[in-house]
Amino acid sequence: MDQKIPVAILGATGAVGQRFVQLLENHPWFQVTALTGSDRTVGQKYGDGCRWVLPEAMPAYARDMIVVPTEPGFAGRLAFSALPADSAKTAEPALAAAGYAVCSNASAYRMGTDIPLLIPEVNPEHTALIPGQQAAHGWPGFIVTNPNCTSTGLTIALKALQGRFGLRRGVVVSLQALSGAGYPGVASLDILDNVVPYIGGEEEKVETEPRKMLGVYHAGVIEFADVRLSAHTNRVAVSDGHLVCASLEFDAQPAVADVIECLAGFQAPEVVRGLPSAPQVVIEVRPEADRPQPRKDRWAGGGMTTVVGRVRPDPLFHIKFVVLSHNTIHGAAGGALLNGELLVAQGYVR
Amino acid sequence: MDQKIPVAILGATGAVGQRFVQLLENHPWFQVTALTGSDRTVGQKYGDGCRWVLPEAMPAYARDMIVVPTEPGFAGRLAFSALPADSAKTAEPALAAAGYAVCSNASAYRMGTDIPLLIPEVNPEHTALIPGQQAAHGWPGFIVTNPNCTSTGLTIALKALQGRFGLRRGVVVSLQALSGAGYPGVASLDILDNVVPYIGGEEEKVETEPRKMLGVYHAGVIEFADVRLSAHTNRVAVSDGHLVCASLEFDAQPAVADVIECLAGFQAPEVVRGLPSAPQVVIEVRPEADRPQPRKDRWAGGGMTTVVGRVRPDPLFHIKFVVLSHNTIHGAAGGALLNGELLVAQGYVR
Amino acid sequence: MDQKIPVAILGATGAVGQRFVQLLENHPWFQVTALTGSDRTVGQKYGDGCRWVLPEAMPAYARDMIVVPTEPGFAGRLAFSALPADSAKTAEPALAAAGYAVCSNASAYRMGTDIPLLIPEVNPEHTALIPGQQAAHGWPGFIVTNPNCTSTGLTIALKALQGRFGLRRGVVVSLQALSGAGYPGVASLDILDNVVPYIGGEEEKVETEPRKMLGVYHAGVIEFADVRLSAHTNRVAVSDGHLVCASLEFDAQPAVADVIECLAGFQAPEVVRGLPSAPQVVIEVRPEADRPQPRKDRWAGGGMTTVVGRVRPDPLFHIKFVVLSHNTIHGAAGGALLNGELLVAQGYVR
Amino acid sequence: MDQKIPVAILGATGAVGQRFVQLLENHPWFQVTALTGSDRTVGQKYGDGCRWVLPEAMPAYARDMIVVPTEPGFAGRLAFSALPADSAKTAEPALAAAGYAVCSNASAYRMGTDIPLLIPEVNPEHTALIPGQQAAHGWPGFIVTNPNCTSTGLTIALKALQGRFGLRRGVVVSLQALSGAGYPGVASLDILDNVVPYIGGEEEKVETEPRKMLGVYHAGVIEFADVRLSAHTNRVAVSDGHLVCASLEFDAQPAVADVIECLAGFQAPEVVRGLPSAPQVVIEVRPEADRPQPRKDRWAGGGMTTVVGRVRPDPLFHIKFVVLSHNTIHGAAGGALLNGELLVAQGYVR
Repeated sequence: MDQKIPVAILGATGAVGQRFVQLLENHPWFQVTALTGSDRTVGQKYGDGCRWVLPEAMPAYARDMIVVPTEPGFAGRLAFSALPADSAKTAEPALAAAGYAVCSNASAYRMGTDIPLLIPEVNPEHTALIPGQQAAHGWPGFIVTNPNCTSTGLTIALKALQGRFGLRRGVVVSLQALSGAGYPGVASLDILDNVVPYIGGEEEKVETEPRKMLGVYHAGVIEFADVRLSAHTNRVAVSDGHLVCASLEFDAQPAVADVIECLAGFQAPEVVRGLPSAPQVVIEVRPEADRPQPRKDRWAGGGMTTVVGRVRPDPLFHIKFVVLSHNTIHGAAGGALLNGELLVAQGYVR
Repeated sequence: MDQKIPVAILGATGAVGQRFVQLLENHPWFQVTALTGSDRTVGQKYGDGCRWVLPEAMPAYARDMIVVPTEPGFAGRLAFSALPADSAKTAEPALAAAGYAVCSNASAYRMGTDIPLLIPEVNPEHTALIPGQQAAHGWPGFIVTNPNCTSTGLTIALKALQGRFGLRRGVVVSLQALSGAGYPGVASLDILDNVVPYIGGEEEKVETEPRKMLGVYHAGVIEFADVRLSAHTNRVAVSDGHLVCASLEFDAQPAVADVIECLAGFQAPEVVRGLPSAPQVVIEVRPEADRPQPRKDRWAGGGMTTVVGRVRPDPLFHIKFVVLSHNTIHGAAGGALLNGELLVAQGYVR
Repeated sequence: MDQKIPVAILGATGAVGQRFVQLLENHPWFQVTALTGSDRTVGQKYGDGCRWVLPEAMPAYARDMIVVPTEPGFAGRLAFSALPADSAKTAEPALAAAGYAVCSNASAYRMGTDIPLLIPEVNPEHTALIPGQQAAHGWPGFIVTNPNCTSTGLTIALKALQGRFGLRRGVVVSLQALSGAGYPGVASLDILDNVVPYIGGEEEKVETEPRKMLGVYHAGVIEFADVRLSAHTNRVAVSDGHLVCASLEFDAQPAVADVIECLAGFQAPEVVRGLPSAPQVVIEVRPEADRPQPRKDRWAGGGMTTVVGRVRPDPLFHIKFVVLSHNTIHGAAGGALLNGELLVAQGYVR
Repeated sequence: MDQKIPVAILGATGAVGQRFVQLLENHPWFQVTALTGSDRTVGQKYGDGCRWVLPEAMPAYARDMIVVPTEPGFAGRLAFSALPADSAKTAEPALAAAGYAVCSNASAYRMGTDIPLLIPEVNPEHTALIPGQQAAHGWPGFIVTNPNCTSTGLTIALKALQGRFGLRRGVVVSLQALSGAGYPGVASLDILDNVVPYIGGEEEKVETEPRKMLGVYHAGVIEFADVRLSAHTNRVAVSDGHLVCASLEFDAQPAVADVIECLAGFQAPEVVRGLPSAPQVVIEVRPEADRPQPRKDRWAGGGMTTVVGRVRPDPLFHIKFVVLSHNTIHGAAGGALLNGELLVAQGYVR
């Protein structure tokens, strides 16, 4: 790439926005040319207006950038959106209409029929929805989305097994990290010595989004996969890393060894393998009885590798296991970034 | 009761033993006459030999009692056992042979065909196994057991629904408290900012014990209930209170309102209701979207009430909900104590 | 008392307000007749408008009370104030002017020269400022305050020693609980696996307030005690209970045994001893090497007893020890309530 | 260096031993040639015998190394000791007698009059004790030590100020991480929602060790610095990173700006600056009101930079501030490793 592609981060001052700022430091393809924020921070230096919450230091490049409004006009062809769902609802179409390619982490348009909901390792071909989307709305730009943080690792594991074993249904129970709720998010008094067995809107997302991503693009539409999921979602006192306990039914009982081989051997489609943010190992299967664990496994592959463990027979269905994924990396900013890279590789962004 | 019944606490210095010491303070029917311990503590005053770990102070009555060995000879007709499974294996039959009635919290004999596995609110009639047990072994005494701490609350909720809706199967995922592992138990470095998705032997217990308790006593044996369960068990950073997410299939789809009514209206059998440790409300159903929570609900009914919430339809099975039970009260010492009271009410202990 | 005294709780929906609601349930002298709140909650039932954050259930009496504005007109002669400092600044004088006796937990007027800053066990005679306060402002009512939650336990321990050993100066370092910051207060992502070594405005309060309370009332003014303190204040991942490490210099080196005797034997002045909320034991001295601990000792005396431990010689000064006090009970709502009871006992409120 | 120096790790299977294994991976000067362990692990592969507790994966080089006894005979000229104090007491002199240079993290010999207690940034010249030590004992090898984890960061900050402002005395209060207690160390039930205000033997170390390191080598002995310290040490629910609140008295009141300049500008002696493990920035001074914080600042300079914040006047003494240091890196394995590098640079190890 002769020259880096100018990119913007929408909602750059929030928790996910900060991860974008971090992951885009020294990116080989992208150069951050705009950081957008809310009225409160517009006009300020990012280093002044942003209450930085990540343990690592704020990248130097961002400190003196002036925060701009989330409106057409900022520099950049690609816009990574960390907007809250309600802001995203109005801002993202306006930006697509103005010619920006929007890679959104927001939930607002994930289930839109002409909007790709993407995990590059899973369904990169769903970007085929883009031309129809542009035509339907008359947009020179477009919107693609990445799934909910809990759906991400789960869907990658399901994809690895779906083709070979014919996935039918499953019960999935999450133990989710605090950073999934943003900042300030969960009050410390609500989670110290406690579990909160409810996360608003989350179960519906986990039950629905994987079906779209595991579905098939055909003639301008996505046919959802015929997979039924039931989800329970819980908040636990963990900083980063969403863990999901899954009990799954396939067309027939697979051998545990075959399931492990299938997970560990899973490869992203060719077009995805060389992308800068693609994990070298898509799924790492841990052999220990007590792994994956959020604190020990969340940083596998820089937060882009999905870690599976405890693969064993399920007395009700066929197979049960535990999946871990870093919710603010692959499950949010890293996932959207990988989407952006895919769009470049596929020629949707130049 | 004119005179209190003399009782012993076996393994009184451990975490569950301490709960027994606490719950038996000023008990209306029982008087603690012996505290047994390991070689390290035998001969010492309980107050000196025991590293007390409960937040509340050690009851005064226990401080100066001399710890005795876990062998026949101590004062008491009823023995509450907080022994580890391996000690229980040899000590409990020896004590039954010596004439003691043993109410054991240990897992060693729970699944024995002639051993009652009891939750008084659920299956008090299973004590009918006792005479056969005594005859078969030639014991003047006997052994009864209470289930694993995670099975307890779950089985109570299942029992409330089984009769009316015909329970078939379910997936149950626990988020379990640290005190379930005893003391010192889980190392702080293993659980801070973490989840451990594995507890040795626990899933087998949760998949099996409820089937025995929900079963039917007939002609000297328990016919297990025809219910299939799949369990995932996780350790989380919570001091007390085990939470279980349950997805359940019945004979037909019940209405949510009927399920709630059935749970909230569940009553213990007549013989159990007046027992000193029986909860006034067996199951409390919380209407809030985000309850039960361990920190807020574990002390319901002094730790003897099971708390259920989030009753809702399950897209795969029929109903899903969340159950909470205090793992060291109803799930351990309180449950065994209630068993002891039941034995008195039924005339097995006088 | 033939009839209970009608009392109001100002700012009843916040975290400290909720503690007042809880502590005033079934109070022998007081009857809650009004709960005030912010614009958001005024007109709603307390049970609907209040996001209850305490682990224990909301008292039934409060659920259907309608929240009223914090303005003169509500029923009650005594008003317990849990207002934030800025609201307190305008509301409390207005209420005093309207004839209410205000027992405030807010910091706004603590250091006012004619405002009693009270811990009944320490300086009940400072209420002698009230008549002058009323005269100066022309108020039929008046304001009394209780100190900052961290100052409370510390000042009680200092008072016990001051008379006998002549306190000169000290370095005090706090490890403070999350509930001290109210609700939602500290974000979970800020405190999980972390310490925040800063609490805004807190060190100034801890360095100043004890000097006023340890001072002497004389001819209408309080002469501050000639004691110099240096404070560091830290926030730690504890729900309730502020711990303070204190290194103290006296007129001469006291024997450790004398200090312990002095602390353990400390009694509240006669007028305070029989008050309903007065702790039976003002200071409990723990002999163990590793106590007091927040989780194990905060509920001593229902949260009204100050717990001291690790009394030992200080190589720089004379004595060092550790003090623990329940920050939302004696350090906030319980302290203000005890002030209210003192005012009744002294005849300032009838 | 043409060939790497062969080194051993003593007590390699414990928590600090594991940090040595980690830090010595790909070290430019040292090659690990032996890992020693207790009877339980001797003869096993390190990967099998060691219960690895660090969040990062075990380095590949160590997995297949066979654990050997902690006795003369293993390969290596330099031995990094992570032994417990009691094992160190006998093993370390035996190894020095056998010709090994021992860099010990154990407390056993820190205060020995002929044993250097070293922080290279502070007192590298104290290695001048080595020849006398060798002569006195007739050892071809020798022992050097690094201080207690809490003393480390504190002493670095004190050293930066001592020369210019003439340090006299101070009160220091620590909030220490769980990893300082090793593994399994602190039980989770002891620290969840709690603080333990006591760490056995720790306060004595913190009050004494800095005086030795700040002292002067003269004619074969270290004259201790005339500085008096009083310490309180507390355990908090933090994984890594010891925080110390310090109130200090100097010869005269320094300006805060001068103290900050002095800390931020502090440089290690020339011989230390180029060492592979020496931090580029010895002390980082944070300007924010609420820093340093363990979770955000412990990894500064790879865990080798000391972070200071909240520098402000002290109302009793002269200056107060907060110091943070990574307790298992600079405070343990990293500190000992830096000592080893110093010994090479000074020619004591070739």
